[in-house]
Amino acid sequence: MQVIWYTAMSMDGRLAGPGGDLSFLQSIDAGHEDEFEEFLADIDAVIVGASTVRWLEREGHGSMPTEGKPVWILTHDEELAGRMAEGPDRVIRREGDVGPVLDEIEIAGHGRVWICGGGDVAGQILALDRVDEVVLTVAPTALGSGPAMFDYAGPASAVFSLEELSRYGTNAVRIRWVRKR
Amino acid sequence: MQVIWYTAMSMDGRLAGPGGDLSFLQSIDAGHEDEFEEFLADIDAVIVGASTVRWLEREGHGSMPTEGKPVWILTHDEELAGRMAEGPDRVIRREGDVGPVLDEIEIAGHGRVWICGGGDVAGQILALDRVDEVVLTVAPTALGSGPAMFDYAGPASAVFSLEELSRYGTNAVRIRWVRKR
Repeated sequence: MQVIWYTAMSMDGRLAGPGGDLSFLQSIDAGHEDEFEEFLADIDAVIVGASTVRWLEREGHGSMPTEGKPVWILTHDEELAGRMAEGPDRVIRREGDVGPVLDEIEIAGHGRVWICGGGDVAGQILALDRVDEVVLTVAPTALGSGPAMFDYAGPASAVFSLEELSRYGTNAVRIRWVRKR
Repeated sequence: MQVIWYTAMSMDGRLAGPGGDLSFLQSIDAGHEDEFEEFLADIDAVIVGASTVRWLEREGHGSMPTEGKPVWILTHDEELAGRMAEGPDRVIRREGDVGPVLDEIEIAGHGRVWICGGGDVAGQILALDRVDEVVLTVAPTALGSGPAMFDYAGPASAVFSLEELSRYGTNAVRIRWVRKR
């Protein structure tokens, strides 16, 4: 199973500004949507944390942007998962350590898993050394504060190979790193 | 005056791991030293925070790696600045807001200023929108925790132009961003 952290971040490694502000994404002027669709077409399952789901709710998104893929939501909040389950996605709520959840996704036969967010979930998976690929769109914006793209309370170091590097739109950068095994 | 933040960071925007650990820099296998010398040759003055100076002390560096350029140290700690002044550099200790310190450096006639560190000093200068250039060596390592390369307690957003992008060594990335004015 391959676990992929595909996300956009500021040049200083943040997923959002203060208060979850995503306006920095406007400094990325490439056709992000088509490419995301292509990425998603190869994904079999999604894992996401409560904070990302709450952010989607606040922004008025009724469901995950995942086109019917099964979604594992990491949360103690049954109501939150229940509301997400009203959308078109198959939602599986789990709580506690992320390791057994990844095991469950693998046993279910899924080959490619997208970490939809946030940096805390990605950080936990990094600490288990189960992040296989990082696909970053780096915005030409510095934020100075906000949640980090890998956010873990402890050492979680892992070295990757640089597989792709290109300019993305006018001033953004696309980087694809693959974990050295 | 041009203010340049030239530094190395992890793929997730961190200057060090827990406890100031810089071992992630070993995943950058390019000839960093020659290039740093070239960069430094065009620098007229240096600004640095107390935490970076303390780190240099702990690591056994008796002075700044700045070849006699004048160094403005931002610290309340007179003894720390005093010890640095025993080295070959001209050391000017200042405390309080970084804005008047930048003004002083400019009035002294310096054209190119290097922010030597850390992310807190860079973040304060970002918040004043006085960072003109960011030269990043991005290591192929994810750290998950540690100090951010721009670290400011509040909004400090600024958009840059992508001026250079290249592979650096086997798996690292070099990015040069210039502030859009």
